[in-house]
Amino acid sequence: MKIALVQQIVKTDKKSTIEMTAAMIKEAALQGAELVVLQELHQTPYFCQYEDTGLFDLAESYEEDVAYWAKVAKENGVVLVASLFEKRAPGLYHNTAVVFEKDGSIAGKYRKMHIPDDPGFYEKFYFTPGDLGFNPVDTSVGRLGVLVCWDQWYPEAARLMALKGAQILVYPTAIGWFDKDDEDEKMRQKDAWITIQRGHAVANGLPLVAVNRVGFEKDESGVLDGIRFWGGSFACGPQGEMLAEASEDKDEILYCDIDFKRSEEVRRWWPFLRDRRIDAYGGLLKRFID
Amino acid sequence: MKIALVQQIVKTDKKSTIEMTAAMIKEAALQGAELVVLQELHQTPYFCQYEDTGLFDLAESYEEDVAYWAKVAKENGVVLVASLFEKRAPGLYHNTAVVFEKDGSIAGKYRKMHIPDDPGFYEKFYFTPGDLGFNPVDTSVGRLGVLVCWDQWYPEAARLMALKGAQILVYPTAIGWFDKDDEDEKMRQKDAWITIQRGHAVANGLPLVAVNRVGFEKDESGVLDGIRFWGGSFACGPQGEMLAEASEDKDEILYCDIDFKRSEEVRRWWPFLRDRRIDAYGGLLKRFID
Repeated sequence: MKIALVQQIVKTDKKSTIEMTAAMIKEAALQGAELVVLQELHQTPYFCQYEDTGLFDLAESYEEDVAYWAKVAKENGVVLVASLFEKRAPGLYHNTAVVFEKDGSIAGKYRKMHIPDDPGFYEKFYFTPGDLGFNPVDTSVGRLGVLVCWDQWYPEAARLMALKGAQILVYPTAIGWFDKDDEDEKMRQKDAWITIQRGHAVANGLPLVAVNRVGFEKDESGVLDGIRFWGGSFACGPQGEMLAEASEDKDEILYCDIDFKRSEEVRRWWPFLRDRRIDAYGGLLKRFID
Repeated sequence: MKIALVQQIVKTDKKSTIEMTAAMIKEAALQGAELVVLQELHQTPYFCQYEDTGLFDLAESYEEDVAYWAKVAKENGVVLVASLFEKRAPGLYHNTAVVFEKDGSIAGKYRKMHIPDDPGFYEKFYFTPGDLGFNPVDTSVGRLGVLVCWDQWYPEAARLMALKGAQILVYPTAIGWFDKDDEDEKMRQKDAWITIQRGHAVANGLPLVAVNRVGFEKDESGVLDGIRFWGGSFACGPQGEMLAEASEDKDEILYCDIDFKRSEEVRRWWPFLRDRRIDAYGGLLKRFID
């Protein structure tokens, strides 16, 4: 199955951005991609760099956004993973991945469960933690374990998707550097981000794709300089082996071919699920064990 | 704190092997190591390549073995992580890591919880799964999250150690290649092994050391050729960054300097423990969710 990862420098206006994304999806479909994954919150600049109640306006168009991407999925006959700012009720918003079927219907959605909050990434202000749990989405191309960004640091999230039969882990994400950090620190951060996700692939015997935002986005509040999103979207197989990797600074459609049957082989060699000590994992449900 | 990882080609007889190990520990202590970690089941060849009730004899000396390594730890004034075949009762054996204090007392022990069973690694025949849970061991050099080999594929094990305040993850291990596998497959396996452990370091903001057996050991049953243990003992920091890495084919004392204070910094930047969705992790206690 051919997958396209659309990594994109966002334009300043939403219309230009989504038109460019739609064009990239069209190109991916022409190249034979059956599944297209977009980066986190791909319609706009990453607005969580500062806290502003006015920015909740961006979620007002959620229903229209869903309709737009449904149409794009249908027109191109692809399964599409979009990442949207969902208004659920006044004062109640989510960071939501919506999965569209090839016919434009909604196959399912996932509301980001782990919400970060660090300088420049004030997501706890904008997003209510998801309440749909860790449930993969069934589609015509397979059962997709869709998670979002900060989730990628949590082995628990990947494991739960695997235990529910996900055939692939899918991460739309938006992570980058602060220019003031030194090169060694930047390298450690990006390498940690790749490594932990490859680790999830290994632990669960599943392929994985991560689609990251790219380009520099200024902090309009002026408190920090801004974030240089490091791109580097990638795909790896069920032994964590790298299959494809995108640049750190360019718009790019990255393709990979994934054979779900490979997981069957790998899990026969390394049957980790067989030997989990579920009798001794109770502590995982605690915050800390002190 | 200076740590020494003793990676060693075992001799055919136990006496020569343990004398060599003791000499390497002495050397490590002279070089200033305060913590010495040995490879899995370091006293003998890896006997789990075939099933033979006669091999349980190897565990008969468990009490003597403990006394021997206690003496070595005391003589050299180091905290020592040994990996022994424990006879607990007739017909009841464990793969047990014993942690010795600098004065030769037993600081604690860990009985391998996840037990593999693959062609050439018939551990379910020899080892009863551990019943001490995932509990770090307090020592004069810090709280050690000691796990053993197959445990290293389980994010749950690393997480539980972290939740119980471990300051470092420590893995004695015995993993290798079959010569008949092609080079790509060998590379994927070793890389997966490194990657998932670095992933545990990242997920938990903890440094990690893994000490692997090295050298070719024939399958005396003649069913398979044998295992070429791939060495490659390594240390990484709390961002998963590699600090030191040993060769794939040689006896070696690998040194690394670990500063536990680094975890504090890294966890402030990436406070993963803060955001775990313990309300939604219940499924982790199930075998599979179908």
